[in-house]
Amino acid sequence: MAKISSHTEAERCIESLIAVFQKHTGRDGNNSKLFKAKFLIFMNTELGAFTKNQKDPGGLDRMMKKLDLDSDGQLDFQEFLNLIGSLVLACHDSFIKCTSSQR
Amino acid sequence: MAKISSHTEAERCIESLIAVFQKHTGRDGNNSKLFKAKFLIFMNTELGAFTKNQKDPGGLDRMMKKLDLDSDGQLDFQEFLNLIGSLVLACHDSFIKCTSSQR
Repeated sequence: MAKISSHTEAERCIESLIAVFQKHTGRDGNNSKLFKAKFLIFMNTELGAFTKNQKDPGGLDRMMKKLDLDSDGQLDFQEFLNLIGSLVLACHDSFIKCTSSQR
Repeated sequence: MAKISSHTEAERCIESLIAVFQKHTGRDGNNSKLFKAKFLIFMNTELGAFTKNQKDPGGLDRMMKKLDLDSDGQLDFQEFLNLIGSLVLACHDSFIKCTSSQR
């Protein structure tokens, strides 16, 4: 795994996002991609907080298709980062709405 | 701070990225932005691993301008995420190049 001098939380996150992608695509340093089966495992094991209340069985399939910008049936690292970014943004928006409605 | 049930590293990163942004823009839940002075503090305190070898004194100023897509002199959360995403991507690319050259 790539080692950055991880002293701060932000630096640790940068390292962790690379590590978690590699964990699910293979640890050999190849420029690997996340196949659909691995994407489903990733979503259910690493992002269970988001998927556990998913009632729609086709929801993750549609998410994969939406994220797979080049339609090669896999997610590369940029496409994976788009997923993380959209989740972070959704959580942030939800938090802002929540705190605003409490005023 | 918004609480997500953070059991995994990926979920913890999502929470941490929101927390670190709020830490530097204010903790009151406002939909705040990162002014230039705060951006410089953020970069030097949270991302010191990336800035400590920065020789060009105007480098961070130019980075701020490039990130500030709507040119309002501040970084909103999406613009902040673009920064994090580009750093993660650069680290990932560097790691892939490094491992490839070792073969």
